Amino acid sequence: MAQNIYDDPEFFGAYSNFRRSVLGLDGAAEWPSLRALLPPMQGLRVMDLGCGFGWFCRWASEAGAASVLGTDISENMLARALAETVDGAVRYLRGDLEALDLPSGGLDLVYSSLALHYVEKLEQLFEAVHRAIIPGGTFVFSVEHPIYTAPVDPGWTTLADGRRVWPLDSYQREGPRTTDWLVKGVVKHHRTVGTMLNLLIRQGFAIRHVEEWRPTADQLAVTPQAAQEMDRPMFLLIAADRRFA
Amino acid sequence: MAQNIYDDPEFFGAYSNFRRSVLGLDGAAEWPSLRALLPPMQGLRVMDLGCGFGWFCRWASEAGAASVLGTDISENMLARALAETVDGAVRYLRGDLEALDLPSGGLDLVYSSLALHYVEKLEQLFEAVHRAIIPGGTFVFSVEHPIYTAPVDPGWTTLADGRRVWPLDSYQREGPRTTDWLVKGVVKHHRTVGTMLNLLIRQGFAIRHVEEWRPTADQLAVTPQAAQEMDRPMFLLIAADRRFA
Repeated sequence: MAQNIYDDPEFFGAYSNFRRSVLGLDGAAEWPSLRALLPPMQGLRVMDLGCGFGWFCRWASEAGAASVLGTDISENMLARALAETVDGAVRYLRGDLEALDLPSGGLDLVYSSLALHYVEKLEQLFEAVHRAIIPGGTFVFSVEHPIYTAPVDPGWTTLADGRRVWPLDSYQREGPRTTDWLVKGVVKHHRTVGTMLNLLIRQGFAIRHVEEWRPTADQLAVTPQAAQEMDRPMFLLIAADRRFA
Repeated sequence: MAQNIYDDPEFFGAYSNFRRSVLGLDGAAEWPSLRALLPPMQGLRVMDLGCGFGWFCRWASEAGAASVLGTDISENMLARALAETVDGAVRYLRGDLEALDLPSGGLDLVYSSLALHYVEKLEQLFEAVHRAIIPGGTFVFSVEHPIYTAPVDPGWTTLADGRRVWPLDSYQREGPRTTDWLVKGVVKHHRTVGTMLNLLIRQGFAIRHVEEWRPTADQLAVTPQAAQEMDRPMFLLIAADRRFA
């Protein structure tokens, strides 16, 4: 079972104050890039893996999706998601991404935002997603970038010559990383870009787009401190389509 | 025109003493991984971009390729390649990868080893390669990994706490990097993994495999100092097939 850090009261309290928790999709700097990878929503049967407060589910429904199923391991998040959703096309289901019982076929789009780095058995999940998506259907997700998850002790450092750098190590050592993020002992699973792409390809997905997200010029102009994101990517965005054969 | 550092006498002298320059393919730790991405050579029409001393060209011919054309910008390297090649199926052509006049169609495999990071106009080259490869044909290449090319001042550093790390910066700032490698002022072109993959996809290639090369367990046992390669990838290996439609 995946770690359910979001139901830790301290974590949940801190996370709930995040810009993206308060403002929703528009509070997430990478959302415009992720949205650009999505197909037109009209009539689609959609699933969101790690739906959190349900922001994407409600957006998809408002954009014309025929049905939207959000799943999350966190009771706290689903409770707020339910309370904020009035749209009958959106349903929520509590579930563990490590052991998700997805239907075969029937979905046009599977979406996931910043959840899959919590999943240890990614191959198993990709297999289930591939089965659940119709041929030609789409899988769009973001995860923390492997450059961000790799270090045993992640964080910026200033070198003797004054350069601020992201000290990288252990990139090739895939596996769990225990970090302190909002609370102590958050477990993420580090995998390289190549590993994720090859898992998708072997399942039968065609890679359509790979984006190591960076702030746009507009975002840099409005938020100068975002410039640090130019030194190492924090997010990896992938769009893949289920092949027909 | 691409920088022709290989015809700098000092560079050429130092490069000629490299393990891979003396031992050929078997002197390159990543060769088994690159070879694993190649189709069976029997009967193939092959081109090698940046063929250097012609090791791969001769290997491909011995492995049964119908014809092999090696191209390189360096007169020095081609002179040695020619001198060491007796096989009539192998031809060499001096050419600049920035302005390569490739035929339309007719090639089954385009190969390139550690040359494309010298190319500024990669999109133009990928377009030419796509045109030159028949539908279903293959493009396999290695380049220096973007994590390796990104830093403005690349090199390992030891932090105050004793950790040896690869200080990463400027990953998202694509463009030329001037480094001192064997001689001063070697110009490489830094591009992210995402940029290279998306350029291939947009040209009409299907990504088949993406490998951020790491030493095998066997290699680590024989060469313990290769362990540093576990901290950051040095090479990126990509296999892509020209789509039929």
